[in-house]
Amino acid sequence: MTDISSPSAVARPGFGSDNMAGVSPAILDALRAANAGAMPSYGADEISARVATRLSALFEREVEVFLVSTGTAANALSLAALTPVWGAVLCNAESHIENDECGAPEFFTGGAKLIHVPGEEARIDPDALAHATRRNKGDVHSVQPACVSITQATELGTVYSLEHIRAIGAACRDAGLPLHMDGSRFANALVSLGATPAEMTWKAGVDVLSFGATKNGAMGVEAVVLFDPERAQEFAFRRKRAGHLTSKMRFLAAQMDAYLADDLWLANARQANAMAARLAEGLATLAGAEIMSPVEANMMFVRLPRRVIDGLLAQGFRLYTDRWGENIVRLVTSFATSADDVDQLLAAAREAA
Amino acid sequence: MTDISSPSAVARPGFGSDNMAGVSPAILDALRAANAGAMPSYGADEISARVATRLSALFEREVEVFLVSTGTAANALSLAALTPVWGAVLCNAESHIENDECGAPEFFTGGAKLIHVPGEEARIDPDALAHATRRNKGDVHSVQPACVSITQATELGTVYSLEHIRAIGAACRDAGLPLHMDGSRFANALVSLGATPAEMTWKAGVDVLSFGATKNGAMGVEAVVLFDPERAQEFAFRRKRAGHLTSKMRFLAAQMDAYLADDLWLANARQANAMAARLAEGLATLAGAEIMSPVEANMMFVRLPRRVIDGLLAQGFRLYTDRWGENIVRLVTSFATSADDVDQLLAAAREAA
Amino acid sequence: MTDISSPSAVARPGFGSDNMAGVSPAILDALRAANAGAMPSYGADEISARVATRLSALFEREVEVFLVSTGTAANALSLAALTPVWGAVLCNAESHIENDECGAPEFFTGGAKLIHVPGEEARIDPDALAHATRRNKGDVHSVQPACVSITQATELGTVYSLEHIRAIGAACRDAGLPLHMDGSRFANALVSLGATPAEMTWKAGVDVLSFGATKNGAMGVEAVVLFDPERAQEFAFRRKRAGHLTSKMRFLAAQMDAYLADDLWLANARQANAMAARLAEGLATLAGAEIMSPVEANMMFVRLPRRVIDGLLAQGFRLYTDRWGENIVRLVTSFATSADDVDQLLAAAREAA
Amino acid sequence: MTDISSPSAVARPGFGSDNMAGVSPAILDALRAANAGAMPSYGADEISARVATRLSALFEREVEVFLVSTGTAANALSLAALTPVWGAVLCNAESHIENDECGAPEFFTGGAKLIHVPGEEARIDPDALAHATRRNKGDVHSVQPACVSITQATELGTVYSLEHIRAIGAACRDAGLPLHMDGSRFANALVSLGATPAEMTWKAGVDVLSFGATKNGAMGVEAVVLFDPERAQEFAFRRKRAGHLTSKMRFLAAQMDAYLADDLWLANARQANAMAARLAEGLATLAGAEIMSPVEANMMFVRLPRRVIDGLLAQGFRLYTDRWGENIVRLVTSFATSADDVDQLLAAAREAA
Repeated sequence: MTDISSPSAVARPGFGSDNMAGVSPAILDALRAANAGAMPSYGADEISARVATRLSALFEREVEVFLVSTGTAANALSLAALTPVWGAVLCNAESHIENDECGAPEFFTGGAKLIHVPGEEARIDPDALAHATRRNKGDVHSVQPACVSITQATELGTVYSLEHIRAIGAACRDAGLPLHMDGSRFANALVSLGATPAEMTWKAGVDVLSFGATKNGAMGVEAVVLFDPERAQEFAFRRKRAGHLTSKMRFLAAQMDAYLADDLWLANARQANAMAARLAEGLATLAGAEIMSPVEANMMFVRLPRRVIDGLLAQGFRLYTDRWGENIVRLVTSFATSADDVDQLLAAAREAA
Repeated sequence: MTDISSPSAVARPGFGSDNMAGVSPAILDALRAANAGAMPSYGADEISARVATRLSALFEREVEVFLVSTGTAANALSLAALTPVWGAVLCNAESHIENDECGAPEFFTGGAKLIHVPGEEARIDPDALAHATRRNKGDVHSVQPACVSITQATELGTVYSLEHIRAIGAACRDAGLPLHMDGSRFANALVSLGATPAEMTWKAGVDVLSFGATKNGAMGVEAVVLFDPERAQEFAFRRKRAGHLTSKMRFLAAQMDAYLADDLWLANARQANAMAARLAEGLATLAGAEIMSPVEANMMFVRLPRRVIDGLLAQGFRLYTDRWGENIVRLVTSFATSADDVDQLLAAAREAA
Repeated sequence: MTDISSPSAVARPGFGSDNMAGVSPAILDALRAANAGAMPSYGADEISARVATRLSALFEREVEVFLVSTGTAANALSLAALTPVWGAVLCNAESHIENDECGAPEFFTGGAKLIHVPGEEARIDPDALAHATRRNKGDVHSVQPACVSITQATELGTVYSLEHIRAIGAACRDAGLPLHMDGSRFANALVSLGATPAEMTWKAGVDVLSFGATKNGAMGVEAVVLFDPERAQEFAFRRKRAGHLTSKMRFLAAQMDAYLADDLWLANARQANAMAARLAEGLATLAGAEIMSPVEANMMFVRLPRRVIDGLLAQGFRLYTDRWGENIVRLVTSFATSADDVDQLLAAAREAA
Repeated sequence: MTDISSPSAVARPGFGSDNMAGVSPAILDALRAANAGAMPSYGADEISARVATRLSALFEREVEVFLVSTGTAANALSLAALTPVWGAVLCNAESHIENDECGAPEFFTGGAKLIHVPGEEARIDPDALAHATRRNKGDVHSVQPACVSITQATELGTVYSLEHIRAIGAACRDAGLPLHMDGSRFANALVSLGATPAEMTWKAGVDVLSFGATKNGAMGVEAVVLFDPERAQEFAFRRKRAGHLTSKMRFLAAQMDAYLADDLWLANARQANAMAARLAEGLATLAGAEIMSPVEANMMFVRLPRRVIDGLLAQGFRLYTDRWGENIVRLVTSFATSADDVDQLLAAAREAA
């Protein structure tokens, strides 16, 4: 994905992605606080222990936690732990794991396949999934369905309902396949649904979660959460071998610790979602603008008149465009997006229109 | 490697590894400074550009730079870029890549082999290397020598002289093989030799460098430095695919930027080395202590009477022991080690003896 | 693919696949003749040399030849030689490499992706290909188009015209991508077109060919033919490393030698194609039968009334069914299929209808 | 391994390797007999079923059998089924899997490591093995011992005694690791010991066996024998995915069937071993010849005066030399070696001396 923003002298809010934002101040403070003296490395420190405790509490059961520094690592390691080399990951064609990780799942699994399961708005349809889990089962000439991966919120900015996840979980259970959730925007989906973390994961049938924090205010940390502790030992070796066992782990842990403390993560997600709603509301009144799918979290795809796109770019707004169709722009808000940022964008768009 | 430190209530300096230390204050400050507003992600930010410029200046030639968050990633990606799947990496049996990365080089290369080349004190002997580069050349039944990897400073804490590196570089050139340097403790070796970065690398024949910063005061950043820019495009895809393309890259870049600014990296390494020298001097007078190899950087292996080891552990010093032989302890100093820390350790050791 | 034939006491012709047939008698004779005394192993024998000479003559240029024992090996090794780990193989969704090799291309390439290019009757459309070669080019988040693979004859039994292959070759050349041809049924396509081997391959833009023999009368041998000899050395190591360098290579070579001698391969293919035509002609008059695509080589997919399918199975005909849609049967003829075999099948079908 | 034989006009017996020999006539006959009519492919034929029955009888228990065409495939698939990607195969440094398969075990396992266990004459020492199984156990920075592989007969031509195998089996059991036997020369070792197949394998602790036939008179077939049927399903997918599921499997099966019928395999091995003994006896009286290790099967390494080696090569004897040390020649006999062949070699050697 080429960043097509003009390197403007005047800094403009980054609506291109939630990873253009910086870091929540409380998380920076936590890094400083964690810098006191020597600590054991590789996760044997106290902050890492505290994060594990926090996540077990949050998910209302004992979970195993592995911190890594990127979402691609979290996803690829998760899928590798669930998929033999001759296996297939069932996912939607719009998945991040399919399109945006340069083959990381294939690399980490040792050459498994990703097989597409259709569904609306980047979601998997449970009936189509049930069909896909049975296809070529036992046929030695074919890779074997090994796990299912869903993205919450999706790459289109839509959100699976709890009922939808439960239906997918049931299809997985029927087929004996584990369920992975790419929760790169977990918090945004959670506050959108008003659900608890447990409801949105293991209670609905999720076995392994990539619990994202980076896009929602952390500097660079994601947690793989294993609801089945049996997978933990394997996971430790896979993480190390992939270069994702950080030596000064306390600084990943400190980010996650502060992210979870005082519900910072929920507040950040609420802000991002609210700003997306404000933006969508504004765009609804812009002549020629068309929002392509429901705005349920902090992201939307919008078809805009060409002159509007050109105008926004010329004014230094950082946007990705044209990847998803002609004159379609992706707009993403983050914890750092202010009402003023949104209003600036809308004003600039109106001016260009 | 099990951390056998007792989790003492009183914090004690961590002599177990230089990665038990925290982060240089200037680097923490740089993270805060980097947190201003939106920036392009994935390395398209200004700080990343500045780091590339700095490293080109430092190495006195145009270099390509790829930042990653761990040394294992830096090494494994470097080796993968140099080694076909049927290739062999020639390295010393004591290498980090051989013993401490859980097979990361094998994973990243797609199953290449690491073949041991002997030499004294964890270094490769140039004549033995020349012999190894010719072994089984062209034999379809055998993996083919594809690159050479040396560690500077070595895993024993010794340092290759410039002359030694040049001899290895010459053997590589004769064999048509590229040379990789694992510079996890690059700065410690550099100040030990009093050499320039260019002299210790490409001028001596090094093609790819893992330029370490984490062990010497950064939070978690290493630079792969490619002296041959042709390898750069491949590298970008390999890094992404391994989950090592950080989205908020500015925060890796900010660490490296501050690390290089005002020669912080050299000052940190000098402190670590000086403390190692002080420690070695003190141990030389301890009854029953035997330093196993020359102390040339910031690490040493010492045989101690059992009661001394037990005494140190009981007092909360964090040490790794017994991995390298009975009653052998590894002692590592860092930028954060003070003269007082060393003196405390020595006093505790004398008391236990 | 489950073999659903009833293990009838009375042997019935195998219309399920051309690999249910045995071996041409001349090839068996050649094995016996090759068994005289000691010969160098691993392909350094005289018969292997003769095969290479024959294939160079056949293709009207110097080619590099690697014999292997299965078509999956020929394809997967070819693709591995053309595709970096972060690459994508562009192919039709109906390809053997996509559906019938249990992920062998992914395994041999180290986790590359197969990306589907649409087209009619299991062929790739050249315009769609041109589009696909440009998609995500240079985007570090996406695998990169690395080669194109077409199947001649296709998995549907259709055949690419020379003009069609040339159009694909041109699209490959424009994009700088090499072109692989899965020629598992190369001979059947060749005699169908009345073309020369050179015309159907390198003159049309093919760089690497899996030249099949097993399905057309050999016991178990396929030749990878490299029109670009530069890829040869890499290929040798890949073949060995995959366990496909046969020690008593003379016996693979002897099969291929006899296959090519006296145009046995062309005669075998003509017989298979003629029997397919005879079968199609007969089925055209069967009530309720529908041939799903043009019969251009030795294979067809036919929708049959359920009672006809059941009747044929009950009488011991070996068929694959229901994999491609309800009541769709694949019928394949081979060099060993006689007019009487075809007539028996037609008679049984008519009886069941 | 370069074949350095001169391509003499006069055919000379091939003492370079047992794979320079052809095929037992009974096996050629079996291929012809198997060529009657259509048969199901991919191993669903009757001959394959008969082979499975034969091997279960031979090993005195129900076994799972997978036929492949090369020894490298048999070994690499076996090791892949026993070793996770972060695992280590413990083997002797002289193993075929370490030196002669171009990294096939690393490829098939997805990058596991082979770790050397010392022992005399290319065997593993049981005490050294016990030590190796415990090394770095549980250390996340290190690959984990996952299985043990021994070669019977060894690459030096020596044979493990039953007692020795049992001791290794016990060490494996203590460590919870499965035991693989590379039985490329299984028959030669078996007749040397006068043991039963069951005694030399599962009764001594072997879990997976590469049961070789090619070197002992077959054309190209090896059986992977799984004493633990649970591993069978995984194995089927791995074999297919590696391109080692032969379509016309009946012809691999027919070879194995004839190999086992009427104890052909034992007769062949006895002949090879007897000829090795005759050769060793003759060399013992040759001035300047030194046999390097006990001749216990059908292979020996002999130091010869340079003029003798040159003389043999000049006369067209096919030999491998200089790979194992200066003036050291490997001599291998086979089922096809006659007393006259041996006497010719001895006469030529005496003449040259």
